[in-house]
Amino acid sequence: MTYCIGINVNEGMIFASDSRTNAGLNDINKYSKMFNYAVGDRNLVIVTSGNLATSQAVFSSIKKDLESNTPERSLNTCNTIEEVANYVGALTVKHSSPHGINEEALQLGSSYIVGGQIKDQKSEILLVYPQGNYIRPSDTKPYLIIGEINYGKPILDRVLKPDISLGDAARCALISMDSTIKSDLRVGPPIDFVVYKKGLINPIYQNKFELEDQVYSSITNSWSESIIRAFESFPRFDWESK
Amino acid sequence: MTYCIGINVNEGMIFASDSRTNAGLNDINKYSKMFNYAVGDRNLVIVTSGNLATSQAVFSSIKKDLESNTPERSLNTCNTIEEVANYVGALTVKHSSPHGINEEALQLGSSYIVGGQIKDQKSEILLVYPQGNYIRPSDTKPYLIIGEINYGKPILDRVLKPDISLGDAARCALISMDSTIKSDLRVGPPIDFVVYKKGLINPIYQNKFELEDQVYSSITNSWSESIIRAFESFPRFDWESK
Repeated sequence: MTYCIGINVNEGMIFASDSRTNAGLNDINKYSKMFNYAVGDRNLVIVTSGNLATSQAVFSSIKKDLESNTPERSLNTCNTIEEVANYVGALTVKHSSPHGINEEALQLGSSYIVGGQIKDQKSEILLVYPQGNYIRPSDTKPYLIIGEINYGKPILDRVLKPDISLGDAARCALISMDSTIKSDLRVGPPIDFVVYKKGLINPIYQNKFELEDQVYSSITNSWSESIIRAFESFPRFDWESK
Repeated sequence: MTYCIGINVNEGMIFASDSRTNAGLNDINKYSKMFNYAVGDRNLVIVTSGNLATSQAVFSSIKKDLESNTPERSLNTCNTIEEVANYVGALTVKHSSPHGINEEALQLGSSYIVGGQIKDQKSEILLVYPQGNYIRPSDTKPYLIIGEINYGKPILDRVLKPDISLGDAARCALISMDSTIKSDLRVGPPIDFVVYKKGLINPIYQNKFELEDQVYSSITNSWSESIIRAFESFPRFDWESK
């Protein structure tokens, strides 16, 4: 399985993805699920969840198109983030239906969060489904998640708002990822993590976190301590004095 | 869907269950999913998730057996919590296979958390599967959950330990329930909630919480405020001063 997060708040964008893949519990591996492209007038990030063969074929096609002198389409020729989502959607439908449209298409499918900023357009994040269509996040919840989305959702719902600082949004993403890793064996480190500030092409921060990494563990430890403190400050039930 | 929690720590036991049932999003209803029995030398709690017809038939059979003068088995004749789990397991297999063992048995199945204390035996909680067999919690994680278990699991994993106070365990259960209700439409109020102190037959606290209930909202609001405070106290990234 997988857990990927895309966040687009007023100050900028954050993307995080785990690296665990499994074909059964006895066949576990590590693959990066993030494609990061910051060149020329654009930054684009694609994170993926689903069938590994399909996701790898899509990332491979994207690279080939970037290297080709005469691509039909590529990340460079797309004029908007929507066009990028459309391009990724078309690739995933193609690669999940190797023998034409078939009943396995969905089983072999992958999902994607596509995000970025092109020139002076507004930044966008979009969720691309295995069928190739896509959605944007709702106005009040400036994030998208794919994969094993349940464990890490409550903290995102409670904290993320469009006007949150980029630092707080980044910490929220890491806590959401950490909660998922602690609760589900199908999600694991290292964590690909990248932060883009609005209007800047290059990321202002990028890391591949292992759990023992100092920056990562200082945040997750601080979170654990905050929870203990929270429990100390809670109002008491009447019956507790008995 | 459903979310039910059973906790068994050194000081006592806590059970919580939501009340939302749905047969499709356009057929939503409220049913209590908790059976609470504190009579004579025993307290027993059963919470359930799964097929509503099966769960109701099981609860109905339990009541009939209690009222019968010559029951084959009943909550009163069971000598241990394991026997109660076995009894509930047999009933659920029977009621989910109305026409003998069939392929629908699992689809029509329900799960249960069965817990309580009989005489001076130690208190126990057990998870009964649709197939009628059951497990106890692990030694380090003194809780069991059924239904929509993902959203509320991280807080239980971070907080619950055998030596936690009964009050903190109760608050942890309510926060776990609240996170699930906020993230998943298939889980909803009112919340049946009961607290047993070890060695006492009658519950020391029992409530049916609506979200606006003062005790409930003071805890969930306090939790939300603690999260905001936690974010204020977190270590900062290097790039945040830029």
